[in-house]
Amino acid sequence: MIVQNLRLDIWSDIACPWCYVGKRHLEAALAQFEHAAEVDIVWRAFELDPSAPRVRAADGQSYAERIAKKYGTGTAQAEEMIARMTKTAAADGLEFRFDIIRPGNTFDAHRLLHLALERGVQGELKERMLRAYMTEGQAIGEPDVLVPLAREVGLDDLEVRAVLDSDRYAREVRADENLARELGISGVPFFVLGGKLAVSGAQPADMLLAALQKAWSDLQAAPLVFAEGAVCGPNGCD
Amino acid sequence: MIVQNLRLDIWSDIACPWCYVGKRHLEAALAQFEHAAEVDIVWRAFELDPSAPRVRAADGQSYAERIAKKYGTGTAQAEEMIARMTKTAAADGLEFRFDIIRPGNTFDAHRLLHLALERGVQGELKERMLRAYMTEGQAIGEPDVLVPLAREVGLDDLEVRAVLDSDRYAREVRADENLARELGISGVPFFVLGGKLAVSGAQPADMLLAALQKAWSDLQAAPLVFAEGAVCGPNGCD
Repeated sequence: MIVQNLRLDIWSDIACPWCYVGKRHLEAALAQFEHAAEVDIVWRAFELDPSAPRVRAADGQSYAERIAKKYGTGTAQAEEMIARMTKTAAADGLEFRFDIIRPGNTFDAHRLLHLALERGVQGELKERMLRAYMTEGQAIGEPDVLVPLAREVGLDDLEVRAVLDSDRYAREVRADENLARELGISGVPFFVLGGKLAVSGAQPADMLLAALQKAWSDLQAAPLVFAEGAVCGPNGCD
Repeated sequence: MIVQNLRLDIWSDIACPWCYVGKRHLEAALAQFEHAAEVDIVWRAFELDPSAPRVRAADGQSYAERIAKKYGTGTAQAEEMIARMTKTAAADGLEFRFDIIRPGNTFDAHRLLHLALERGVQGELKERMLRAYMTEGQAIGEPDVLVPLAREVGLDDLEVRAVLDSDRYAREVRADENLARELGISGVPFFVLGGKLAVSGAQPADMLLAALQKAWSDLQAAPLVFAEGAVCGPNGCD
């Protein structure tokens, strides 16, 4: 039954290659989805590395070397993984620049995404942040980086600064992360359609489209009658 | 999964005794429902008598006589039905005044309820209209009756007049009625919880509470995993 739009909650991070790829696949799916205009997207916070410093200090290591060290793989293996990811992203029109990437903490970015949700520009800010991080080598944990990005999507500098200088939206970010834990989400992106159907990971557009169609048809199903009592109808009242 | 409030759509009319009783039962159920603050109610249009004139001309007949004539029952039987309904309503604190009731067309009232929905005072206007019709003997089809009722709940006179003098919200009222037809709704009140669970008629508060609890628990259920793909997690990306 169409009483409301289809709600689509997406848990993801900024510092997250597959999240950006997943976003492109979703956009491709929505471009083919008849009811795209009736889908309400909410981007939910997920930090892959909550303990990361605001901006990682330069240590002379390449991204592959850091990855290799962190996960205990060889550098060659890490480089191969990065190359594969870069190639996959390129096929979706994305330029991943692991050579200039500047890892950092994304908590403040997620707080601004909550501000952007209230101001109706969350999708725009999410896109801008992903590009800044994955393509432009911008230090997404830095207030001085975040303010101009937010300005670009129409947010007010003073308001953005006020959020960054306070703990506004910290509670909302934690709530997203708590909900992710409750749902058992261990990796992102993670899509939840209509609160009922989950797609984990950067699925191909066709799969996301199939999920959208299934969720839409679920939404249209007639409601189950729970109980019946006294009514008034065209022929009088019971 | 709690990603959004519980949506409660209620199809009902103004000229509808059981709709007013059902509203009281719902209020009693909500008073006992832990998550009442997270329920979003939308009142949907349903006309029991779409062909009714704006205001029925005085014809010297009592309500019981009109009912008896319309449905082909005896006047005594109609009077008994009215007495029973009046008594039931009184038990819920409602005063039904069938002796002064002024039947009429409710299409314009429903249009104003859509305006009130946009202005955040739909529940208030619905209540005010039901009282005007069922208790105060006001001619709910008359613009000069509707304007002051709308004013009482905070709507702007000029805006209300502009709606009444145009066909604004006619499409929304028809859409509600079309949806009712699609759902096979033949009598009101008709409650739809979370788009998924239906309660037909003026059920006791306990039954409505049980339906609210069931719908709430459905809303909290973990989503079904439709598909799994490449993700980034705390230990790196696939």
